[in-house]
Amino acid sequence: MRANMWRSAARLLPASHPTHLPARTLSVYLQSKRLRDAAASILNDVDHLEPASVQEDQHQFEAVFPDIVQDLTKTTSKYADVELANKWCEKMLKYNMSGSSNLRGLAVSQSYRILAPAAEQTPQNLRLAYIMGWCLELLHTSLVLTQDLIDQADERRGKPCWYRQNPRQAPDGAPRIMEYAIYKLLKKYFRNKDYYVDAMELFHTVGEKAMLGKILDMETRGDPTLSMFDMTLYSTISKYRSAYHTFKLPVALALYMAGIRDTEMHRQARTIQLEMGNFYQAQSDFFNCYGGGQWNMKPGHDIADGRCTWLIVVALQRASPAQKLALIDSYGKREEEKINRVKEIYGEIGIPQTYRLYEEHTYELICNQIHQLSGGLPKQLFFGFLKTMTGR
Amino acid sequence: MRANMWRSAARLLPASHPTHLPARTLSVYLQSKRLRDAAASILNDVDHLEPASVQEDQHQFEAVFPDIVQDLTKTTSKYADVELANKWCEKMLKYNMSGSSNLRGLAVSQSYRILAPAAEQTPQNLRLAYIMGWCLELLHTSLVLTQDLIDQADERRGKPCWYRQNPRQAPDGAPRIMEYAIYKLLKKYFRNKDYYVDAMELFHTVGEKAMLGKILDMETRGDPTLSMFDMTLYSTISKYRSAYHTFKLPVALALYMAGIRDTEMHRQARTIQLEMGNFYQAQSDFFNCYGGGQWNMKPGHDIADGRCTWLIVVALQRASPAQKLALIDSYGKREEEKINRVKEIYGEIGIPQTYRLYEEHTYELICNQIHQLSGGLPKQLFFGFLKTMTGR
Repeated sequence: MRANMWRSAARLLPASHPTHLPARTLSVYLQSKRLRDAAASILNDVDHLEPASVQEDQHQFEAVFPDIVQDLTKTTSKYADVELANKWCEKMLKYNMSGSSNLRGLAVSQSYRILAPAAEQTPQNLRLAYIMGWCLELLHTSLVLTQDLIDQADERRGKPCWYRQNPRQAPDGAPRIMEYAIYKLLKKYFRNKDYYVDAMELFHTVGEKAMLGKILDMETRGDPTLSMFDMTLYSTISKYRSAYHTFKLPVALALYMAGIRDTEMHRQARTIQLEMGNFYQAQSDFFNCYGGGQWNMKPGHDIADGRCTWLIVVALQRASPAQKLALIDSYGKREEEKINRVKEIYGEIGIPQTYRLYEEHTYELICNQIHQLSGGLPKQLFFGFLKTMTGR
Repeated sequence: MRANMWRSAARLLPASHPTHLPARTLSVYLQSKRLRDAAASILNDVDHLEPASVQEDQHQFEAVFPDIVQDLTKTTSKYADVELANKWCEKMLKYNMSGSSNLRGLAVSQSYRILAPAAEQTPQNLRLAYIMGWCLELLHTSLVLTQDLIDQADERRGKPCWYRQNPRQAPDGAPRIMEYAIYKLLKKYFRNKDYYVDAMELFHTVGEKAMLGKILDMETRGDPTLSMFDMTLYSTISKYRSAYHTFKLPVALALYMAGIRDTEMHRQARTIQLEMGNFYQAQSDFFNCYGGGQWNMKPGHDIADGRCTWLIVVALQRASPAQKLALIDSYGKREEEKINRVKEIYGEIGIPQTYRLYEEHTYELICNQIHQLSGGLPKQLFFGFLKTMTGR
């Protein structure tokens, strides 16, 4: 579906004069501006209704963390013999869980605030939403540690990577313990809830999908001919690697917590959230190359790592035979001049302009999907997500 | 408790003449011989009752594996986009899951055969017991892969270690995918069973304990002064690292599958199984140094790895000041002469003889515990386990 979407967007673009904007493209801009204005008015309503809730959530969410660490690492009399391991876990959790934006975790409580009836939004229930959010942050961080191993990264969240700090230890100790922590918290806080099994199954299936995304990433990166890279592969990797756990999971958890089990509502939410996840990934790929964005990202190492990104896939689609050969020669190499050569070709092909058009088109498409929602899902849930995660 | 047990066993041993057997020690031998004879008669009864079931289980258990792989890696139309990842998973499962003794997995179906009423032992239910056994084998193999990372091992199950075969991939990909596979199988086959949640929770909590055991192992090995090594630490590591998942888990799963939820029966089974697990670990430690045993183990690398084993703990307890200094100097080093020096000191202290006495005493203690079982748990379940896992 993403591939089709891209093909239809590509048809909108002038092949030989990427900086020129024809009338049709202009109309896309205007249409999307109208949609953005409509979305903004909904978001303003939300802000008006709950002016302090986002900030309050951030504050309360952070305030729960020490209790979470305590729950996960306190040495009890029943298991007094593992105090040494508990101390290791405490250190590991505090090191790795800090410095995150916590956007995914916060998305659980923010979605819950929109979905649950006001009378149910008691301090106790909001606290449960924060704890569920921390479960999601634990999954995300465990995946981030695996990603660092794949990328052989040096730094994460402003600090040296955990596995580099602990070279004598098995690199999978921390991510595996983090995953077990999720189920320990679910058992402690949600065992008597009717969505306990749903939550466990969601973490199992979404976690597995994220790992499959990483397998796809590992299996395809560094392809010397770049022949595997196309929009279908890119779209699959991005969906599995991040869209399920970053976009689908927080809303699905909040739906269950708000007592919404209707499969059609879950399906509608999933469709929009996965679309948004792909949009988010293309945006991340763009900022990984050029820096910037709402988080003011520093340029990353996607080109040197040889990752299947939105940019390289579009570049391969639009490159001349000579440019294609140069991309094959330079992509996935560590040398500075090869990385610069790839960026030069991106410039020659007009990737930044193409990306801007794609961004407008996709934003419009997602806004349309949200507007066409039927069956009771509140639109501001998705517009809020779109704004928070993509800065639009 | 294990430490107390050891202290009481140690009191039985002559401190200065380890090869000399006083009257009291002889009586231990005779007493344990009587117990072993009693156990043998129970086991013979079991064999007489079900002559073909063990062999049949082995055959049927293996026969289920291709279906398991198919369940876990078949590309369905719903997720056609991850075929590449599925192929990776298939290769990874076939590589890593073969060559195991499958003792843990088989223990589920063998325990189920003893615990479930005969009328319930239909081909369908036995097949479920095999599948549950494969879930346990998946957990065990995922832990084995983590152990190989800790040990920086070269070989596993007669082949090069998976992480050595795939140096460009994140080393935690395979163990994490294996864990997700457990929950995929549980969801497919056990979702409508009243023990579905119990099984998921067991895998979560037991898996976590096994990982905590590995953390303890990582945090204590290579201690340059060996000052952390004592019987309490040894006993804790052995319980967490292997006793829970190898001994407690198969019986607990079989109890649930046989419809037995009584907490007192689960507690009694756990107590005996954990005791047996510690016995098994001491035996493994012994064979890791000297080779042999029912699986005809080759000597391993515990001394060079600096692991907290039964042997080094007893040696430190009984060493003269000079021997202790030599152990501190040589233990956990890779040089051949240092490894040999440790083995020499083990010989001087009489570790092999001490181990044999410990083995007799512990065997007796476990047999006594089994004989004293009340409340309906069949004794042959535990005697069968003792025979299969420890060769006694």
